[in-house]
Amino acid sequence: MDKSSVFETSEYRRRLRIVKERMAAAGIEVLLTVDPANMNYLTGYDGWSFYVHQGVIVINDEEDPVWFGREQDSNGARLTAFMPTERIYGYPDTYVQSTQTHTMVYVAELLCELGVAGRTLGVEMDNFYFSARMLQVLRRELPDTSFIDATALVNWVKTVKSPIEIAYMRQAARICERVMQTAIDSIEIGVAEKDACAEVVAAQIAGTEQFGGESPAIFPIMPSAERTSTAHLTFDPDRRYQPNDVVLLELCGVRKRYHMPLSRTVYLGDPPDDLKRTADTVVSGLQRTLEFIRPGVTAEAVEATWRETLRGTGVEKPSRVGYSFGLSYVPDWGERTISLRPGDTTVLEPGMALHFMPGIWLERYGFECSEPVLITETGCEKFVEFPQQLFTRKGA
Amino acid sequence: MDKSSVFETSEYRRRLRIVKERMAAAGIEVLLTVDPANMNYLTGYDGWSFYVHQGVIVINDEEDPVWFGREQDSNGARLTAFMPTERIYGYPDTYVQSTQTHTMVYVAELLCELGVAGRTLGVEMDNFYFSARMLQVLRRELPDTSFIDATALVNWVKTVKSPIEIAYMRQAARICERVMQTAIDSIEIGVAEKDACAEVVAAQIAGTEQFGGESPAIFPIMPSAERTSTAHLTFDPDRRYQPNDVVLLELCGVRKRYHMPLSRTVYLGDPPDDLKRTADTVVSGLQRTLEFIRPGVTAEAVEATWRETLRGTGVEKPSRVGYSFGLSYVPDWGERTISLRPGDTTVLEPGMALHFMPGIWLERYGFECSEPVLITETGCEKFVEFPQQLFTRKGA
Repeated sequence: MDKSSVFETSEYRRRLRIVKERMAAAGIEVLLTVDPANMNYLTGYDGWSFYVHQGVIVINDEEDPVWFGREQDSNGARLTAFMPTERIYGYPDTYVQSTQTHTMVYVAELLCELGVAGRTLGVEMDNFYFSARMLQVLRRELPDTSFIDATALVNWVKTVKSPIEIAYMRQAARICERVMQTAIDSIEIGVAEKDACAEVVAAQIAGTEQFGGESPAIFPIMPSAERTSTAHLTFDPDRRYQPNDVVLLELCGVRKRYHMPLSRTVYLGDPPDDLKRTADTVVSGLQRTLEFIRPGVTAEAVEATWRETLRGTGVEKPSRVGYSFGLSYVPDWGERTISLRPGDTTVLEPGMALHFMPGIWLERYGFECSEPVLITETGCEKFVEFPQQLFTRKGA
Repeated sequence: MDKSSVFETSEYRRRLRIVKERMAAAGIEVLLTVDPANMNYLTGYDGWSFYVHQGVIVINDEEDPVWFGREQDSNGARLTAFMPTERIYGYPDTYVQSTQTHTMVYVAELLCELGVAGRTLGVEMDNFYFSARMLQVLRRELPDTSFIDATALVNWVKTVKSPIEIAYMRQAARICERVMQTAIDSIEIGVAEKDACAEVVAAQIAGTEQFGGESPAIFPIMPSAERTSTAHLTFDPDRRYQPNDVVLLELCGVRKRYHMPLSRTVYLGDPPDDLKRTADTVVSGLQRTLEFIRPGVTAEAVEATWRETLRGTGVEKPSRVGYSFGLSYVPDWGERTISLRPGDTTVLEPGMALHFMPGIWLERYGFECSEPVLITETGCEKFVEFPQQLFTRKGA
C-alpha cells in the first residue's frame, strides 16, 4: 500500500518536535489528541471517521506517534498517515457507541501495551471530540495516571505556519476567490436561494483548473433578508431572492484541509442610505486596521484599532472581530487560539493567519466584509484579492 | 420578528412531553442537551453556531425549554426556535473560547436564575458537544447538584418518527435518488474526481423542482481505486478516474435536517469476477435481510439474518451492518442509538428508520450497496427507489 500523506515525513517530524517541546514545558509525557485537525497535523491522517472515537498518541521519547481508531478505518490511516503500519492500531466494532464497554477502555489497555500507562497524560479537556465520559473512563482505568489539560496545545503549534503550509493556503485562496465570485454572480432577484447555494458548493469542490477543493469545515453561510440579522443562519431552501434583500456570504475555499474564509455582502437593488453608511464605515475601518496589523502587536491592540475607527459613526460591534485559522475539520475553520478582542494579549508573529471578520448584525439586517491575512516579517499580506465593497445586483 | 420553526408548536410539545417522561424515569429534573440535533428536535433551533458552547435546558415542571447560546446567535434562536423571546438567553462574547472564564460558569448562573440549580441535572456525558471541561466546571460551580448521565436520552425519543417527520424523510429520499443518479452519471474514465464530486454536492443542495436540500452531516464519501479498501476516505482532489477503478458512493439527501443515506458502487470497465461475486452475495443478502426486518424483531436478529446469508460465500463483514438515522448535524447522520450487531437487543418498532449498510472493505477494494428503510406496522418499507446492483461505466 503506497502512502499518500500530504507532506514529507520531515514536515511531520518538525511539528512533532515542537509539540514535544511544549509537552515537556507543560510536564506532559504522553499526549492524547482526539481533535481531527490535530491528528491530521501530526500524522497526515485524513478520513471522515471522527464520529467515532479515535486519536493520536505522542510519546515524549519515541519518534513516531501512534494512531488508533476503528478497525475499518485503519487502512485509511495506513494510506494517509506517515507512520509505519506497526504504529497503527484498529479496535473492533464492539467498542463503537457501546453501552457495555467504552473505547477509552481500549485506549487504557493500549497505553499499557505501549508501556507508558504510568506517565503523565495530556488530554484536550475542552474539545468537541473529548467528551466528559472519555475522561471519566480513562481516570477509572488508569487510577495511577496524572492527567494534565492539553487543550489547544497542538492548536498553538499549528498557529504559526510553515512555508509549505502557506503555499497550500494560497491555493485555498485561489479557490476562495472563485467561490465568492460564483456566489455574487449567482444571486439575482427571482433566483431560488438553493440554486445559488448549489453553485457555491460546486465551486468549492471543483477548485481551479490546476487543483481541486475539499469539504468545508463550515458549510456556506448565505442568509437573506431578515435571516441576515443574526450570525450563522444559512440560505432558505424554499425561497427565491426578492427585491431589496440583503444577502450575507460567509464562504471559504479549502485545499488539503487548509481553509481560506472570506465574507462579503450583496444587496438586491439600490441599497438604503443606512446600509451604505454602515458599509463605508466597516470597509474604511477594515482598511485602517489592516494597515496596523504587524508582528509584535497584540491581538487586543488590533481590536482596539478597529474599535477606534468606529468612534462616532454609530456602528457598534460588541463581539470579537477575528481569529486564527488554517487546518480544520467540521465544525469550525477557526483554530481556537487567537481571538481579536479585549484581553487577548497574544503577540502576533510572522506565519500566523488571521481572519479579520467584523460582522455587523443589526435589527433588520447585517453587513459583512472580512479579510484573511498572513502576518509577514514587516506587516500583513492579504491572502485573497477581492474588492472590499457592498455588492449590488438586480436580476431578471 | 416572525417565527420560522419547521414544525407547529404542538409537535415540539409532543416531543418535550416524551422527553420529560424519560427524564422522570431516570430521576432527572433538569436536562441540559448540547447536541445540535437534539436542540433542533426539541425547539426548532437551526444555525451553524455549534462550534461555540450552547444548549437547551428542559425543566421538568415548566412548559417551554430554555435556549442559551452566544449573543450574536440569539436572533437566530428567536427566528427558528418555537419558544417566546423570554426563554432565549444570549451570553456575551467574552465567554467564547475563553481561558479566563468558561461558558459553563454562565450556565450555572443561568440555572440559579431559573431557580433550578438544586435539582438533579441530566447531561450528555458521551457527546461530541459535551467536553470533559464542561462537566468539570459545572460540578465546581454547582457543588450541591447531582449529575445524571443523559447520553442519548433525547436520541432515543428521536428514534421513533412521527408522520410529519416521515413526510420530510420521504422528501429527503427524493433528493437522495437524484444525488445518487447524478453521481453515477458523472463518473467516467478520464473525468476529474473533483468535478464528479462538485456535481454531487450541487445536487444535494439543489434538491428537486419542488423543494431544496441542505448541508449533509457527512460530506459525500466517494473514494476510488485503492482508497476504497477502507471506510471514510473520499475523492482525491487531484486525480482523474482510471480504467478498472472501483468507486464507492456513500451519499445522502437532506431535507429540514432529516437525512436519507444511500450507498452504491461503480466499476469503470468490465468488473472482475471476484467483485461480481461479492456484489451478488451482498445484494442477495441485503434482499433476504430486508424481508426479515419487521416490528418485534431485535437489532441483533437482523444482523444474524444477514450473517447467515454470507455463510459459505467467503465474504466476511466483521463490523456492524446498520444503524438508526434521521435528524442530524455534523459529524454524523446516525442517531447513535440502534446498531445492527450482536448484543444489541433493541426491539424494532414502527416509525424507526434504519440504514442497512453492509459495507465490505477488502484488501484491494470495497463494495457497498445499502438501503435506508422505515419500520412499518407489518414489515419494512424502502425509503428510496434505486436499483440494487454493481453499476458499470466506461467513458470517453
